Amino acid sequence: MGFRPKNISLYELAFRHRSVAKEIRDGVKDSNERLEFLGDAVLGAIVANYLFSKFPFKDEGFLTELRSKMVSRVYLNKLALKIGIDKLVQYDESNRLYKSICGDTFEALIGAIYLDKGFDFTEKVVLNRIIRFHVDIDELEKQELNFKSKVINWAQRNRKSISFDAREDNSDERQRLYHVTVYIDDEAMGTGTGFSKKSAEQSASESACNNLLVDTTLS
Amino acid sequence: MGFRPKNISLYELAFRHRSVAKEIRDGVKDSNERLEFLGDAVLGAIVANYLFSKFPFKDEGFLTELRSKMVSRVYLNKLALKIGIDKLVQYDESNRLYKSICGDTFEALIGAIYLDKGFDFTEKVVLNRIIRFHVDIDELEKQELNFKSKVINWAQRNRKSISFDAREDNSDERQRLYHVTVYIDDEAMGTGTGFSKKSAEQSASESACNNLLVDTTLS
Repeated sequence: MGFRPKNISLYELAFRHRSVAKEIRDGVKDSNERLEFLGDAVLGAIVANYLFSKFPFKDEGFLTELRSKMVSRVYLNKLALKIGIDKLVQYDESNRLYKSICGDTFEALIGAIYLDKGFDFTEKVVLNRIIRFHVDIDELEKQELNFKSKVINWAQRNRKSISFDAREDNSDERQRLYHVTVYIDDEAMGTGTGFSKKSAEQSASESACNNLLVDTTLS
Repeated sequence: MGFRPKNISLYELAFRHRSVAKEIRDGVKDSNERLEFLGDAVLGAIVANYLFSKFPFKDEGFLTELRSKMVSRVYLNKLALKIGIDKLVQYDESNRLYKSICGDTFEALIGAIYLDKGFDFTEKVVLNRIIRFHVDIDELEKQELNFKSKVINWAQRNRKSISFDAREDNSDERQRLYHVTVYIDDEAMGTGTGFSKKSAEQSASESACNNLLVDTTLS
């Protein structure tokens, strides 16, 4: 990444998955999970600032959606693979595959850089070493976040039945609301509320995608 | 807040609610909503770092939960009132009451400070001027985030019927899952999935609390 760490132990911690960590106190392990918590928040702020200045005439809805795509678990996993995190992460390989180990470790690494070098330095590393080379923002922008079609495709690929139950809610006199539930094989898998049926469906589908771990970044 | 702004127009923007903003281009208004997007992310990083260093022996689950409480819409509204945001925010008072206008403006103010003075300065302001005086972290820590009891209390106060529908899912051989749906007056209001019935209930109740705008920070 083009810089020399000050405190190397932070980086060792960042690459240590909980499957190979030892308990240090009160059930807390010396794994990368605390750093992941920190790095997730720092990355969120860096990406927010990047989008805020890159798109001065876009509203917060646009910025929020684009940020969701950039920091989604699936997209971070891909980014982490591109920068070679998988070759450095330490974990118990005899165990089952850990689904988002690379994205989690990537966030932990950002937490480590932040603690070692501060916010401004971390921001420069993320912008100049990662986003500039590995993030195609135009492509991300074009990807429509159509959660309804994602969850329907998922159900078809996995041979599950899917249905959407929409109900009108007129209890608020000023504004009609819609509540939508997505059922997969007759199990409620996500619910959403919105001022239009379409937005309620999107929101319910998004929650179903999250519950089903559907990859929502692929078009 | 004890400092002199460099760019005063950022602060004017931070206090301008969309109800009094003018369109500047392509439907985007000169309201505080873009700054709110940025400030939300910056505040998230500041709070994450604060909790990370304050609780060196707590795991990421504890940190995540405490951060959720600190940056919840309801808690930010309260904080914003304590520091007097309501006296500065500009909005169309003839219109309906805007529920979270103070918390939103508070986040926009943090976005403005960040753009004006950078991350480290903003962090100092938030820690020394706001968290130190206005956040009782021990009290927040003690508040149990029991979403199930919150949503039940809410339903009783509002004379609505409430029921929890739990289903076992044995489709994954290695791990049984539970899907819970919270019904309010027979409408699905939240769903959750978990490895235990209890955690699925909590998750479904949390989503119902969000959909119903239930105040989850009061004990």
